[in-house]
Amino acid sequence: MTHTATSLASDLSTMGARLLGEPSLGIIGVASLASAGPQHLVFVEDAKWLPQALLSRAGTILAGEFAANATAPAGKAILIVRNPRLAFCRVAALLHAPPDGAVAVHPTAIVPASAQLGASVSVGAYSVLGENVRVGEGTQIGAHCVLAEGTILGAECVLAANVTVYQGVKLGDRVIVHSGAVLGSDGFGYVRDPDSGRYEKFPQIGTLEIGDDVEIGANAAVDRGALDATVIADGVKLDNMVHIGHNVRIEENVVIAAQSGVSGSSVIEKDVIVGGQVGIADHVRIEEGAILGAQSGIPSKKVIRGRGIVFWGTPARPLREYLKELAVLARLARKS
Amino acid sequence: MTHTATSLASDLSTMGARLLGEPSLGIIGVASLASAGPQHLVFVEDAKWLPQALLSRAGTILAGEFAANATAPAGKAILIVRNPRLAFCRVAALLHAPPDGAVAVHPTAIVPASAQLGASVSVGAYSVLGENVRVGEGTQIGAHCVLAEGTILGAECVLAANVTVYQGVKLGDRVIVHSGAVLGSDGFGYVRDPDSGRYEKFPQIGTLEIGDDVEIGANAAVDRGALDATVIADGVKLDNMVHIGHNVRIEENVVIAAQSGVSGSSVIEKDVIVGGQVGIADHVRIEEGAILGAQSGIPSKKVIRGRGIVFWGTPARPLREYLKELAVLARLARKS
Amino acid sequence: MTHTATSLASDLSTMGARLLGEPSLGIIGVASLASAGPQHLVFVEDAKWLPQALLSRAGTILAGEFAANATAPAGKAILIVRNPRLAFCRVAALLHAPPDGAVAVHPTAIVPASAQLGASVSVGAYSVLGENVRVGEGTQIGAHCVLAEGTILGAECVLAANVTVYQGVKLGDRVIVHSGAVLGSDGFGYVRDPDSGRYEKFPQIGTLEIGDDVEIGANAAVDRGALDATVIADGVKLDNMVHIGHNVRIEENVVIAAQSGVSGSSVIEKDVIVGGQVGIADHVRIEEGAILGAQSGIPSKKVIRGRGIVFWGTPARPLREYLKELAVLARLARKS
Repeated sequence: MTHTATSLASDLSTMGARLLGEPSLGIIGVASLASAGPQHLVFVEDAKWLPQALLSRAGTILAGEFAANATAPAGKAILIVRNPRLAFCRVAALLHAPPDGAVAVHPTAIVPASAQLGASVSVGAYSVLGENVRVGEGTQIGAHCVLAEGTILGAECVLAANVTVYQGVKLGDRVIVHSGAVLGSDGFGYVRDPDSGRYEKFPQIGTLEIGDDVEIGANAAVDRGALDATVIADGVKLDNMVHIGHNVRIEENVVIAAQSGVSGSSVIEKDVIVGGQVGIADHVRIEEGAILGAQSGIPSKKVIRGRGIVFWGTPARPLREYLKELAVLARLARKS
Repeated sequence: MTHTATSLASDLSTMGARLLGEPSLGIIGVASLASAGPQHLVFVEDAKWLPQALLSRAGTILAGEFAANATAPAGKAILIVRNPRLAFCRVAALLHAPPDGAVAVHPTAIVPASAQLGASVSVGAYSVLGENVRVGEGTQIGAHCVLAEGTILGAECVLAANVTVYQGVKLGDRVIVHSGAVLGSDGFGYVRDPDSGRYEKFPQIGTLEIGDDVEIGANAAVDRGALDATVIADGVKLDNMVHIGHNVRIEENVVIAAQSGVSGSSVIEKDVIVGGQVGIADHVRIEEGAILGAQSGIPSKKVIRGRGIVFWGTPARPLREYLKELAVLARLARKS
Repeated sequence: MTHTATSLASDLSTMGARLLGEPSLGIIGVASLASAGPQHLVFVEDAKWLPQALLSRAGTILAGEFAANATAPAGKAILIVRNPRLAFCRVAALLHAPPDGAVAVHPTAIVPASAQLGASVSVGAYSVLGENVRVGEGTQIGAHCVLAEGTILGAECVLAANVTVYQGVKLGDRVIVHSGAVLGSDGFGYVRDPDSGRYEKFPQIGTLEIGDDVEIGANAAVDRGALDATVIADGVKLDNMVHIGHNVRIEENVVIAAQSGVSGSSVIEKDVIVGGQVGIADHVRIEEGAILGAQSGIPSKKVIRGRGIVFWGTPARPLREYLKELAVLARLARKS
């Protein structure tokens, strides 16, 4: 399929797209200003970068309303939309869609007769599917993945190479999982025998349910519930090396940056944003829309409340308070 | 093998178990109050939850002495024990034991003639064992594991799929290792050449010795010693993404929560509890029974002493001091 | 090849090596004082340890100029060099070089016809190479590695078992990558649709370029650039579980300890030393030679400047200031 400035303007019609300049330009990909060539599309979201974009080698420039009166240089196109950054994402998804020609189960993949694969599913070399695994239409499983017994994947998921899924884990549609991620591992639960001093394993026999449109980063780990389920709702994005403990519930459209961890039974309500290296202890509740600054720490059983409010520090407090404390402390130290 | 309320009462006899109600109830698994059915066993460790447990669909309720005078509803059983949570763990271990029927070496597993496998060992698809690997009786190795030359595993270990073990690492009996864990990787040691400014690799040719009843979480990494050994003693539990540096020694029954790290040559004495995201620098000694709060940090060469005392902050100090400092600071900030 | 005290003295001639005692001693490896035998070489870098070294079972002792007047015990050798620790690294590299006999592509490795392997390349069992992968002379690829389409590895690299490399990633010469590491995964970039509240994926189609003599620890993850490249320059050492975000640039001879993370578009200039569990936010610049203490945190867009200066805390400040603040705070808390 060939894309042109005109066809993309039509693809972006709901974003108010309109075209200035050359309509028939062929476009093969998105790029940065620095790397773009004539067949690439770039984006600018601030008027001050427009001149540089127009001078770049890019053939097509996606820009905001601020460019409405600009003139496209000869042989170039300007596509005006309401939200150029978001439009750029959508164009990239169109132009860089995974090829759907090479669909196949690699001959070395182990797929038992009890597994059910939807249409157009691909399974990479040496991947191993357990009994009764179900994979939805169009899902791509990379090389060296292990999906244990009873795993259920929705449609159009992409598992990169070397993803491990424990038994019975369920993923929704369009879930992306990066290499090294582990889904459904045992939670960390023990009971100490007061006589022997030894820790005995608390059963970790629950499940893990992941919604639609979730993305999970490289080397992340999400534990199954102890007796019930760990739940990751639709639209959640977890960065590399994020750890999610057993029985945690993460609601819609939560974003958690790299190396953060959430301990057992905590609840992160929808629209929460969690920075990198944040530590959330057990039985915490982060209420809707709160923002946890990088490296902040939330002690056990705490409730954090405040849509759009940034919390920082350990224990986390509103950013304003935290900054004031830092300032007071610095002043005292200078005087001492 | 079939389990009944009566047979479990006998299995738990050392915990003072006695049975009220229906003795012949068949039990197939443990569950939470919310998910239990008639063939499940649940537990209650506080009298206030007993009414709810008795009203649940669970057929068998494990409870403490507080339930001694309760009456089991028709067709149900109450099992009274001294420590219901611990008893629950033991029942779960009986009921959810891995099936020992499906023992086999998968035809795609690579097992050289020099490897010695004990009775009833299973090796999953595509796993690769190096020369002279020895695996004890009843140990289960998942799919896609790599055990390099000279690895020694004890009896009844469980390696989930996709565990990597470097050459010569030794594991004791009943060790559980989760997916993505790496055992015996090189430590992080270099010497800088003052002329070129380049770091040259210090040899990392020691070993890693892991005791009995250890559990290691998903995507954890434990480095081998530089010249001697890294040692993880019996009963140690490491959560997901824990990092253990070279030459570290971790003594019996230490518990380390997710994403914590221990740098080279540090010693963590027995019964220490380490929270999540704790950082322990090199050559530190954490003495017997100390408790390090989540995200605390222990600077190089420091000694932390105090059985049962909680330390918090970076650098870690007794919790009481730390809380006082937080309070003073907050007060000053409010006044300023 | 056989090594003797005399041959090693010659190998170390640029370090001013000279030999006392027995010249013909055969040496098979390096060791610690505690574990050494007659065929091992040990090192001492401080005069106070010399007596113990001479009394150890080691046949050969590498020492500094302080040992110039020592007398080698009968049947032993003392090798005197300017920098015994650095010399020890170099001897170890000679003595413990990977055997180059067992060079081969394992029959189960998947190597497409379009892949180009240099001389003496080894590829371990079940490793999977994509189309157009290029591997330089003498590089060793462990078992269970996945190198996606277009990956380029230089000469004499060592990839341990179970390394995953995404498409088009380039590694220089002599790069060491440990198990579980993921190179070239997608960065964490989304644009939120203000209408639906959903996050849409920003394209992550850039590349990852890694220089010569880099070492990457177990379970580390280095993301590819979003549109351009993530760059890791020559001589960089990353410890276990280090996270590097998209578009980051890390310059020559930077060392980053375990579990630290660098967010998108940050620049770490050459010779910087980063402790463990450090968090570097996005668009930060750490200037040449600065030292970030363990667990410190650098907020977004911040510039850290000062060769040889140690920074600590979150937000990171010069160590001296930070310690003063800690002292002031402790004093106030005691008084309160």
